[in-house]
Amino acid sequence: MTYFDKTKIKNALQLEVEDKEDVTVMGWVKTKRGSKNIAFLELNDGSTVENLQVVILNPAEFEELEDINPDTSVRINGYLEAVEGREQSVEMKAEELSIIGDCPADYPLQKKEHSNEFLREIAHLRPRTTTFGVINRFRSKMSYAVHQFFQERDFSYVHTPIITANDTEGAGELFTVTNFDLADVPVTEAGQADFEQDFFAEETGLTVSGQLEAEVLACGLGDVYTFGPTFRAENSNTRRHAAEFWMIEPEMAFCNLEDNMQIIEEFLQYLFQYALEECKEELEFFNQHVAEEDKIAKLEELVEVEFARITYTEAIDILEAADKDFEFEVEWGIDLQTEHERYLAEDHFAKPVMVTDYPLDIKAFYMRLNEDGKTVRAVDCLVPGVGEIVGGSQREERYDVLVDLIDEFGLEQEQYQWFLDLRKYGTVPHSGFGLGFERILMYMSGVSNIRDIISFPRTPGNAEF
Amino acid sequence: MTYFDKTKIKNALQLEVEDKEDVTVMGWVKTKRGSKNIAFLELNDGSTVENLQVVILNPAEFEELEDINPDTSVRINGYLEAVEGREQSVEMKAEELSIIGDCPADYPLQKKEHSNEFLREIAHLRPRTTTFGVINRFRSKMSYAVHQFFQERDFSYVHTPIITANDTEGAGELFTVTNFDLADVPVTEAGQADFEQDFFAEETGLTVSGQLEAEVLACGLGDVYTFGPTFRAENSNTRRHAAEFWMIEPEMAFCNLEDNMQIIEEFLQYLFQYALEECKEELEFFNQHVAEEDKIAKLEELVEVEFARITYTEAIDILEAADKDFEFEVEWGIDLQTEHERYLAEDHFAKPVMVTDYPLDIKAFYMRLNEDGKTVRAVDCLVPGVGEIVGGSQREERYDVLVDLIDEFGLEQEQYQWFLDLRKYGTVPHSGFGLGFERILMYMSGVSNIRDIISFPRTPGNAEF
Repeated sequence: MTYFDKTKIKNALQLEVEDKEDVTVMGWVKTKRGSKNIAFLELNDGSTVENLQVVILNPAEFEELEDINPDTSVRINGYLEAVEGREQSVEMKAEELSIIGDCPADYPLQKKEHSNEFLREIAHLRPRTTTFGVINRFRSKMSYAVHQFFQERDFSYVHTPIITANDTEGAGELFTVTNFDLADVPVTEAGQADFEQDFFAEETGLTVSGQLEAEVLACGLGDVYTFGPTFRAENSNTRRHAAEFWMIEPEMAFCNLEDNMQIIEEFLQYLFQYALEECKEELEFFNQHVAEEDKIAKLEELVEVEFARITYTEAIDILEAADKDFEFEVEWGIDLQTEHERYLAEDHFAKPVMVTDYPLDIKAFYMRLNEDGKTVRAVDCLVPGVGEIVGGSQREERYDVLVDLIDEFGLEQEQYQWFLDLRKYGTVPHSGFGLGFERILMYMSGVSNIRDIISFPRTPGNAEF
Repeated sequence: MTYFDKTKIKNALQLEVEDKEDVTVMGWVKTKRGSKNIAFLELNDGSTVENLQVVILNPAEFEELEDINPDTSVRINGYLEAVEGREQSVEMKAEELSIIGDCPADYPLQKKEHSNEFLREIAHLRPRTTTFGVINRFRSKMSYAVHQFFQERDFSYVHTPIITANDTEGAGELFTVTNFDLADVPVTEAGQADFEQDFFAEETGLTVSGQLEAEVLACGLGDVYTFGPTFRAENSNTRRHAAEFWMIEPEMAFCNLEDNMQIIEEFLQYLFQYALEECKEELEFFNQHVAEEDKIAKLEELVEVEFARITYTEAIDILEAADKDFEFEVEWGIDLQTEHERYLAEDHFAKPVMVTDYPLDIKAFYMRLNEDGKTVRAVDCLVPGVGEIVGGSQREERYDVLVDLIDEFGLEQEQYQWFLDLRKYGTVPHSGFGLGFERILMYMSGVSNIRDIISFPRTPGNAEF
């Protein structure tokens, strides 16, 4: 027996049925109801949010019917028929039904509503729920949108290393990767772990960003982008933090900060437009069951607006003039907090805003120094409801200036010699940015906890499944 | 100044120029030659394998010309003109030229040919070479092909976890991921590392496969695929092994081994066809400079053939009857070695062959047990020149049988309870396979060392850049 003769429910629901259309479908029964004379099954196979309604006209002849519980898997032969006046244009009449897999009564996912907290504990079963089906398909489609955007523009997709000896952000939040037996780590005379004896013969960790390597590739290939997992060993138990998440990091040669901002805006609006066109059923579901605001209206608005652009210094002026009590005091030099970012995007501009030219002291070492010597060509894109969603910069491409910055940030020049070489040999102005994939999905969907956007979230104390 | 007014060289070369077309290009000078009266620059910006020829009709007026070395970066204004009788249909006449970044004489990448070994040591500069430009663009295009294949077929792209407590293949080749200070690891009374105090409160490592989690997702979403990094802490210094590589792992619900084989064949042929259509310049380059055989002819052949299908037992019969001295002796029960696989695919069938129903003892615990009790519904796809390129199976979907297999393989049932739950509640026949992305790229391109297909390879003793 081969299964290929099955029709996916997504396709069955889209068929233009004239008379009767013979089909075989397989899936999980979501609900069963009916009487002695007629029974109805709602069937789903994970291909779409909607269930296929299966009608059984002579229930008494279907022995297996009574053994069907929620999420029993079945195979049904029969035919599709057009129906009038309902949302779905087809339903199925069953001729043969067989149970593939029983679902006993101790099944944790019964029909009643479950809390998100409970569902996280059974992350191996929650993909069977309507909500997590929608989230997963949304994530998949938006991943493809990311690739389409960059591939259509001739960016090369690059795979930067996961295991690395670099700490790009210098924040010391690297997980260690080792092949040592941790109960018996060889140590040096100085009492340090002797990484020369480890697999890579040096201390290695999980990447926090592919940017430095993406710069290498941009300085040969022109326009590149990464889209892969990144990590933070940060002991944060918030709705927005996970130890493992996916990031998109484009990097463009011959590109300054203005170009960079243009690409950021174009990219975000492309994603919003893509969702409106290709994820209609997911957005409608989020609107009805997940989001606290009308996400479709929101995205329709966002694809039309021109993002505001101000400098950090202008942002500070606006915040200082604001008639609002901020928890964190505003003065030039502070790192903007979410409350400040949201004030700018929500209250002041009421649309996304790109803030540029942040103080050197609160940004990373690789950003291009401005002539004032105290600000850098950084950009953060702030959106209403969230705050920062994209961070980027023009990179420092001048060898001598970068050497000074590495020094100023207390880093070792020797470790960054390969990075400096890009500036020594045929250096070019280049820029890039980073977008946390889960953050943008949460923003677009209204899913409020990162643990529900990632199938198997990794957080402090949790690496289950 | 914004850089957006630049024309990418790929696009410049494709312009249909009638008279003169004003352009600004930026890139790295690959060669410079000429005389007092005329000079020629070959310019590349990483967008294509071909250089743009830039003609300077009055070299004396271009002061910066003499400071240009290989890989000096420049900005040139001028116009494109059609040329007759050459491979390229346009060339550029320069009107203004300015150096963006010098390239001093100690540049390691001079014009002469460099060995691949040397280039690996300067992996931060090799993307600027023609060969590595081609390899990177090929990798990017084929990544996109992978996504297109599955998205067109309504598979959901899923991100399975990198950090995991599972050892899918049971081979004990996991790197450890920890947040401990390795010089000061807390130990239990029994003298073991006390992982309860670690970040995830249990022992974790880097995934060797996303399959088990992909099974979870397939058992809710139907058809899914992963495409992400996987890891092996395997001390192998061969041309084909790296500690970090990318894998594609589709997993399909309501799918048996025959369906699985059909998808494997369709997928591989899609990739080959895609390369023939979308990567012409890359394949031509590989043919001329990299591969030892005509790769285009090879791929054209591969998209036409029907893959052979035999059982392991039939394969053993063929090998035993073969008039060939194998290094490893052939008898029923052995794991097929590359020499055996290549004999089958190259000598016996002279085309790809799928071998199914391997002995239980040499395969993983999750494969579906046949009625004979000693073979499983595994499939390896063997190709001429390489041997195994895809491995897959129908998964054991029967709860009791899987419990026995877990036991037989010496694994702990408790650790796999979530995996068993998939079989307890609405179980479905499902199948999947894994394809090493670098392996297929090497096969298609003729690049013979995995260190040259990965931008920053991780191998024993090496995690540079």
